[in-house]
Amino acid sequence: MLLEKTFVDTITYRPGVVILYPGKADMLYRVSNGLVRVHTMDDDGNGLTLRYVKPGEYFGEEALAGLNRQYFAEAVTDSTVDVMNPALMGAEENLEVTTHLVKTLERAYASIYRLVGKRLRARIASELLELKDTALATRQQNGELLIYATHDELAAAVGSVRETVTKVVGELSRDGVISAGYGKITLKDEKALRQIAAE
Amino acid sequence: MLLEKTFVDTITYRPGVVILYPGKADMLYRVSNGLVRVHTMDDDGNGLTLRYVKPGEYFGEEALAGLNRQYFAEAVTDSTVDVMNPALMGAEENLEVTTHLVKTLERAYASIYRLVGKRLRARIASELLELKDTALATRQQNGELLIYATHDELAAAVGSVRETVTKVVGELSRDGVISAGYGKITLKDEKALRQIAAE
Repeated sequence: MLLEKTFVDTITYRPGVVILYPGKADMLYRVSNGLVRVHTMDDDGNGLTLRYVKPGEYFGEEALAGLNRQYFAEAVTDSTVDVMNPALMGAEENLEVTTHLVKTLERAYASIYRLVGKRLRARIASELLELKDTALATRQQNGELLIYATHDELAAAVGSVRETVTKVVGELSRDGVISAGYGKITLKDEKALRQIAAE
Repeated sequence: MLLEKTFVDTITYRPGVVILYPGKADMLYRVSNGLVRVHTMDDDGNGLTLRYVKPGEYFGEEALAGLNRQYFAEAVTDSTVDVMNPALMGAEENLEVTTHLVKTLERAYASIYRLVGKRLRARIASELLELKDTALATRQQNGELLIYATHDELAAAVGSVRETVTKVVGELSRDGVISAGYGKITLKDEKALRQIAAE
């Protein structure tokens, strides 16, 4: 439950629009619709996705701690975002945000675990399962799930490069686990995908 | 400022003692002295350090969100820990813990960034600089900093294996940046170490 007074604004962003840049941070943001990507860039301008923010989840948490923002936030699909003033949050809202932060930290640790201990094949499978319940996924008439994601986007999310991702996507396609088209991937066998993610 | 009523207990642990195991989480912990390591293990029992918890910092944050603990917490040196009941925390304590969570998340993202974009040499340099102001470090009479850390511990912290860490530590020693002894590393040139960390 969020208090009325906490809301400053509600804004809708088009896909690809950068919502937040690194720098001074005042406001906290909650996705109400769509999908937002929090990412950073290396010195060569290569993107690294730190997390996807789904409806009901928050970003811009630096404002809670009075810290400068280190990251970018970008709308992946059409996304509606509530802008909130953290200074006006009540106890219940604070608990909700704290819970989100703890979960986000666990997800970051899971990413570290996968980066260190899992092969790229397993990390790509995990990533596709992660995107399964986002605005990037649509259920087809035949029941299969189609996910809109380019190999570049997958690479940024699993800490790899496009060429290598393309190779693994090809392998998974040949194994019948997914089928890949231009900028989209269809999940053909979600059970097999979960097994590969756990490898 | 932490309220008196929030404290449940203060406990001192010997080096190597496991303070928390994965499972049900009720209490929040704050290190008042020493150094605590939060880590996980892969299926083969290899450790992966997720973060070090220094005096004034918290661990066991799962209790804030009513989530099960996923990780181990272990005393690295003699460590004194305050056990706190998150249900009894006041607004000011909540803000302190939230600030800590935001910073911890930033550190996790920095780890992901280094894992993806930095060579092992840079990651080991970062890790040594991270340990510089912990209970593992002691200033020598000649002004140099000595850090107690085995190659196994460094490997667990940078997501590598001992053999590879040993090789890189050897390189850094030959370059005169550090000098390595059994279970300890002396920082000979901190400026060079910072440059290597940024490579």
